[in-house]
Amino acid sequence: MAMTGVLRPGHIQLKVLDLDESVEFYSNVLGLTETGRDAQGRVYFKAWDERDHHSVILRQADSAGIDFFAFKVDSCATLDKLEKDLNAYGVATRRIPAGELLETGERVRFTLPTGHDIELYSKKSEVGNGMSDVNPEAWTAAAEKGIAPIRLDHCLLYGPDIEKAQAIFTDVLGFYLVEHIALDDSQDLAIWLSCSIKAHDIAFVRHPEPGKLHHVSFLLESWEKVLRAADIMSMNRVSIDIGPTRHGVTRGTTIYAFDPNGNRFETFCGGYQCYPDNKPTKWTMDEVGAAVFYHDRKLNDRFLTVVS
Amino acid sequence: MAMTGVLRPGHIQLKVLDLDESVEFYSNVLGLTETGRDAQGRVYFKAWDERDHHSVILRQADSAGIDFFAFKVDSCATLDKLEKDLNAYGVATRRIPAGELLETGERVRFTLPTGHDIELYSKKSEVGNGMSDVNPEAWTAAAEKGIAPIRLDHCLLYGPDIEKAQAIFTDVLGFYLVEHIALDDSQDLAIWLSCSIKAHDIAFVRHPEPGKLHHVSFLLESWEKVLRAADIMSMNRVSIDIGPTRHGVTRGTTIYAFDPNGNRFETFCGGYQCYPDNKPTKWTMDEVGAAVFYHDRKLNDRFLTVVS
Amino acid sequence: MAMTGVLRPGHIQLKVLDLDESVEFYSNVLGLTETGRDAQGRVYFKAWDERDHHSVILRQADSAGIDFFAFKVDSCATLDKLEKDLNAYGVATRRIPAGELLETGERVRFTLPTGHDIELYSKKSEVGNGMSDVNPEAWTAAAEKGIAPIRLDHCLLYGPDIEKAQAIFTDVLGFYLVEHIALDDSQDLAIWLSCSIKAHDIAFVRHPEPGKLHHVSFLLESWEKVLRAADIMSMNRVSIDIGPTRHGVTRGTTIYAFDPNGNRFETFCGGYQCYPDNKPTKWTMDEVGAAVFYHDRKLNDRFLTVVS
Amino acid sequence: MAMTGVLRPGHIQLKVLDLDESVEFYSNVLGLTETGRDAQGRVYFKAWDERDHHSVILRQADSAGIDFFAFKVDSCATLDKLEKDLNAYGVATRRIPAGELLETGERVRFTLPTGHDIELYSKKSEVGNGMSDVNPEAWTAAAEKGIAPIRLDHCLLYGPDIEKAQAIFTDVLGFYLVEHIALDDSQDLAIWLSCSIKAHDIAFVRHPEPGKLHHVSFLLESWEKVLRAADIMSMNRVSIDIGPTRHGVTRGTTIYAFDPNGNRFETFCGGYQCYPDNKPTKWTMDEVGAAVFYHDRKLNDRFLTVVS
Repeated sequence: MAMTGVLRPGHIQLKVLDLDESVEFYSNVLGLTETGRDAQGRVYFKAWDERDHHSVILRQADSAGIDFFAFKVDSCATLDKLEKDLNAYGVATRRIPAGELLETGERVRFTLPTGHDIELYSKKSEVGNGMSDVNPEAWTAAAEKGIAPIRLDHCLLYGPDIEKAQAIFTDVLGFYLVEHIALDDSQDLAIWLSCSIKAHDIAFVRHPEPGKLHHVSFLLESWEKVLRAADIMSMNRVSIDIGPTRHGVTRGTTIYAFDPNGNRFETFCGGYQCYPDNKPTKWTMDEVGAAVFYHDRKLNDRFLTVVS
Repeated sequence: MAMTGVLRPGHIQLKVLDLDESVEFYSNVLGLTETGRDAQGRVYFKAWDERDHHSVILRQADSAGIDFFAFKVDSCATLDKLEKDLNAYGVATRRIPAGELLETGERVRFTLPTGHDIELYSKKSEVGNGMSDVNPEAWTAAAEKGIAPIRLDHCLLYGPDIEKAQAIFTDVLGFYLVEHIALDDSQDLAIWLSCSIKAHDIAFVRHPEPGKLHHVSFLLESWEKVLRAADIMSMNRVSIDIGPTRHGVTRGTTIYAFDPNGNRFETFCGGYQCYPDNKPTKWTMDEVGAAVFYHDRKLNDRFLTVVS
Repeated sequence: MAMTGVLRPGHIQLKVLDLDESVEFYSNVLGLTETGRDAQGRVYFKAWDERDHHSVILRQADSAGIDFFAFKVDSCATLDKLEKDLNAYGVATRRIPAGELLETGERVRFTLPTGHDIELYSKKSEVGNGMSDVNPEAWTAAAEKGIAPIRLDHCLLYGPDIEKAQAIFTDVLGFYLVEHIALDDSQDLAIWLSCSIKAHDIAFVRHPEPGKLHHVSFLLESWEKVLRAADIMSMNRVSIDIGPTRHGVTRGTTIYAFDPNGNRFETFCGGYQCYPDNKPTKWTMDEVGAAVFYHDRKLNDRFLTVVS
Repeated sequence: MAMTGVLRPGHIQLKVLDLDESVEFYSNVLGLTETGRDAQGRVYFKAWDERDHHSVILRQADSAGIDFFAFKVDSCATLDKLEKDLNAYGVATRRIPAGELLETGERVRFTLPTGHDIELYSKKSEVGNGMSDVNPEAWTAAAEKGIAPIRLDHCLLYGPDIEKAQAIFTDVLGFYLVEHIALDDSQDLAIWLSCSIKAHDIAFVRHPEPGKLHHVSFLLESWEKVLRAADIMSMNRVSIDIGPTRHGVTRGTTIYAFDPNGNRFETFCGGYQCYPDNKPTKWTMDEVGAAVFYHDRKLNDRFLTVVS
């Protein structure tokens, strides 16, 4: 969590082309837990070890992609303060009423220069992780249903003006830069930002078209769980983009794959612990391959071009 | 890091009976990197992936145990503010001048009701982790020298009045309670406190004698590294207290073992990510065994009695 | 498999005190697959990746322990030859008719000087591992039902005259000695014998009382699966004897635990590949602790005394 | 080991273009132990846990590729018998005198219809694995020098007439077919053969040009060691062909990479235990992708075309 009171990535709303097929995928292949459906037909999910009501919302749409990505903050007071700080910084916001998302309080939404809608909120019903809060076991059967990530980890967004997005996250919301790929001395191709001790809570790649999703990432516990995820993808004929492999950036291990709609998702493990007093790690364009895919040390064609 | 600006455990000073034997142990068996020696004869170490000058200081003494445990804060301003906050809370502090520890700025020290000296500081020279901050590799040879933990993780301290220590950490320093073992309805046997998203940055067990160290803990990357640590302990005839096993509390995997002086240390992996909005997990005395050693579900004799 | 045509451990018949409770345990906690019940009331199980009809048979009895342990041989001709070889070596045999065990051909049974009944057989119905033999997947849901060992691996038997048992296995059946613990220059405390490239297919410990079972061992794929097994044991309140840990002998990783009847079982991973041209590894009594439990380097009280 | 007395893959002689560069690679990146050099300038290596004098021999040559692949047999009598059996089967053999390879007895060499030279031998000096044969530790520092495979595992050879090679291995040498990819009802694209309980000791792919090497494979202990191998490859700018991934065939985990000469090698882990009574697994051409690379379910261009 950031010193501003921003806690963590709280939810992402994804657009899907075929809701039924997608629900099947997110439930049984990715292994999220369905927690509700609303009057609009949206379907809500949480990862098994998350305690709040949901972290992924699927909405039927004519194209794949992302509607919005949200961060939970620690209190209503923080929500109010950050809204004022955003406005003072020149970022327009609007309030989404409590209940517009199931079991979720009022949200403050703003649009980044990259074209993405970001939300802050402070209230969501705690439904627990399926284990008692008195004398719990170490895990439950839900930890082995499908890929079964522990939690929503981060997302990587593609759009223009990423330095302006970075400024909002660092100057107003209390994030800090952990790693970056420098296009040249004056600008970055990509930036990884943290509001905690995770190597990234959100990341951006410079891209001409605004508002695009490169991937949403889910956390796994171990490299062996990454192998298990790849096996389950194969069994279910999920299209794997790349992996299992390691990123140079964050050192995390990873698989990129596509949901049935073409939304890329990541099953991610690791990433070093970092703190805002650490000097950011810089990657140069001659080593961009190693930055992204550490083992192969070269990008595949899809990394910079395929987004949803 | 806490919203107050407390970042992380920064260093521990340990008392050792035979400095040479201990330096050999911490260097070649535990696999820390020696970074300096001072005029008092103290020897400084860091874990390989830490970036600041040191996290462990060994001091020759007549008994084993802990001199002090310190947290880094994000700025001088935070250091000043927290000192004032502590004083306002009724906690006396004193300043240790910059340079008293090598490469370290001024420290604010205070004594907990449990009898332990805790320090805050904001400056320590960044010496890096042995890898370039431009286009780094994933790890270095230092990651395989001895047990080679990634970093100092936390410590568990034994003493009286742990609720008063808890109050200082939560009310003043911005920590929050993650798990606790309830002796009865009115008081806890043990508390685990976090200033970050780690399952613990410091922990306490109620104990009649003040100022005792149960263990200092070092972070490993994987359960397989825990096995490797146990192997290296065996090869070097290190006295293992228990493990490899899992804790119920934090769900982390662990080995407890003893340095040549009888100071218990832990090689620890995992622990779930937690946030201050999570409801604390409570353990009751009938399940204290599972809380501490999840697999055996019973305490060994040493857990509550052997401290240094 | 041995050059004599002895292939592998094929089945063990265990005595259990409460059949229903035991079936529940072997099915849902250990995670074997029930494959049949016979007219005597015996219940048959296989590990998920085994292809023959069964490897574990439970029989209700007044005491726990082992009825017999069997090896599959490659053909009827081998079965006939080995029976003649056993008889020529002075070992009496008797034929158990085909069908006495479900889906199993004729068995040749003999009693070791240690008091254990050993069987050879060449026919058992192949039921497969639940995956197609054309274009199979990597594993099935059965691989995650309970502890879910891959296969029956070996057993460790306690009794007198282990050198005479060793002679039968090595001189007649084509096994070879892989490791041994020497009591003194003239006799062994324990011997590990292989008929393959596994570090052991059967093992013996010298013990005054004949015909006792120390443990039956089941194979796991990885150290992470050993952790998962320990977690599942804890969740199901299985009594763990020791582990997770490593053996010095074979270097395998292990948990010893008890079924509801007091029969010890092992969930085992690894063990080096060995061949009959390798010099056996010898352990001396001053290092017997490290031989058995490599990390602790000392025996627990139960290892030499608790058998069924 | 086979019932014929064929024990295991014993050595491979590889052709390299630059001996010094190759020695550096095999010593410090792959992490084999150099054990000798002979008068011809050949350099000998063993994997750390192998006990015989060598398993890899490098010979400076004008092109990359394989000179010969050898199997150790259990005795001189077996060597003589198998030579006679080969001759009786119509396979010409010739004797290479003892000492032609360092520390190695007489070898029986024959050429397969695929164009590869295969050798049998029964004697090679046992030099041990660097650990005592009395009260050994679990591993040594050599286990972490470079990639540090445990042992030579198998090789995959490309050439014509693979069914004739299969016949020699199964009819004469006692191997059995474990898996195969069927080109059509009458012939196979690829075959995997075992003389033990390993999923393969040698394998062949049908290919018009005789005598080609697809890869030589080295065994690792765990999927985490596979990750470590990939990291070390990246650090040393080794060209990775594919991986870390899993094979459908054998279910083993794998990386294919190239030595500095273009000889492909594999770092391999796992593969199920198999026995000659198991029904072979068949793959059809529509699933050849999954057979070879289970996660991607498609071949890369290099698999069928790049050999040395």
